[in-house]
Amino acid sequence: MPRFFVEPPLAVGQTATIDGADARHIAGALRMTVGETLTLCDGQGTDYACTVAAVERESVSLTVDAAAPTLTEPTLAVTLYMGLPKGDKMELIIQKAVELGVTAVVPVATARSIVRLDQKDGAKKQQRWQKIAAEAAGQSGRGIIPTVEQPLSWKQALPRWEQENTLLCYEGGGAPIGQLVTPADTALSLVVGPEGGFDPAEVAAVTAVGGRIATLGKRILRCETAPLAALAVLMERSGNME
Amino acid sequence: MPRFFVEPPLAVGQTATIDGADARHIAGALRMTVGETLTLCDGQGTDYACTVAAVERESVSLTVDAAAPTLTEPTLAVTLYMGLPKGDKMELIIQKAVELGVTAVVPVATARSIVRLDQKDGAKKQQRWQKIAAEAAGQSGRGIIPTVEQPLSWKQALPRWEQENTLLCYEGGGAPIGQLVTPADTALSLVVGPEGGFDPAEVAAVTAVGGRIATLGKRILRCETAPLAALAVLMERSGNME
Repeated sequence: MPRFFVEPPLAVGQTATIDGADARHIAGALRMTVGETLTLCDGQGTDYACTVAAVERESVSLTVDAAAPTLTEPTLAVTLYMGLPKGDKMELIIQKAVELGVTAVVPVATARSIVRLDQKDGAKKQQRWQKIAAEAAGQSGRGIIPTVEQPLSWKQALPRWEQENTLLCYEGGGAPIGQLVTPADTALSLVVGPEGGFDPAEVAAVTAVGGRIATLGKRILRCETAPLAALAVLMERSGNME
Repeated sequence: MPRFFVEPPLAVGQTATIDGADARHIAGALRMTVGETLTLCDGQGTDYACTVAAVERESVSLTVDAAAPTLTEPTLAVTLYMGLPKGDKMELIIQKAVELGVTAVVPVATARSIVRLDQKDGAKKQQRWQKIAAEAAGQSGRGIIPTVEQPLSWKQALPRWEQENTLLCYEGGGAPIGQLVTPADTALSLVVGPEGGFDPAEVAAVTAVGGRIATLGKRILRCETAPLAALAVLMERSGNME
């Protein structure tokens, strides 16, 4: 069933209105008509079953028929700290990470990141990435729209990792990633490097603030493949792929 | 260390010659010079440490210094049967599946595949996909070049699945995929649908020939995300991500 995020509050019996790009999508690409059903999600864990009451080009009216908790959110909140990769790889990473259940994505400028974003470019990119996250959240049936933060410097990120349950993926070795998570874990920070991986000094710095080092095995994964493989394993091992 | 596949046999003490695109890559992009080292892999499980003896534009001579078993091959041979997706998604799937340790990829025309390839188009695509598999195998340090087969029809594929240890990923439910594999498994066929997923009749047909139905969880994965998440979990659960 088509699924759209709306701003709360919503209530059963109420009339809800969708406008803008979502309304054009419903009227245009989906060609929905009065009486058809779709799901609205408040982005806070509740889904609302709705019936189309009226369709105009820029506005769709719906009656809210029933409410139910969203069942798709994982019990493990993973924040992906991603070393800024080249080109448009971050777009692929964000789209797939949202499908796989990520809670937040934080781009980080690491020693081997080729890309450097000033504050203006960073803000512009963040807007585009947030839009990709919203689209992927709708398409994959998520109960929240994962947040994409503005890019951080290494110095800004490191104090966070000291506070968080942090795993850094390193091709130079570490504990098997599947053994570093259990169904009892509720939050985890996953740190993945850009194309050239991490500098050994960066790995040492994360270890020094209490982070654990994880391996994804003996095959060398591209920087966009590593976070997706890691997320799949973390979700599976924490009981969130059932 | 740079790594290239060559035709066997190779022997320690011998001089090996690389020509064509690999030679241009060594001389050009990598700018390697006499005395530098690289790895040749025979694609049959042995790596050879080599030293550059001479570099020309179209030919590189190497002395073969030492031989050692390739350590990157998984103990589980996964054949990915992939429902033909739209556009160039198969290219992404093949590249990532090779990084994640797939042994063979077989495109399959399923009920909901929009793309239809005649024999000529199928052969042309297969050549391009095989090239992508070879590049990904070199880049990720594989010990073999995974095979990409010519696309099969559903009717051609079904008798194979009857003979093989087959898992079909279905968004309509099934057993958690992580529970369908153990470190004792040595071969497995993974069947994944195109954009629209599988027709229930297809799922029933695979069940009827002994295949098991697997779920990847409650979030809806795009058709290119599903095989990669499944492969990551299969490799991890079989002890091949350590």
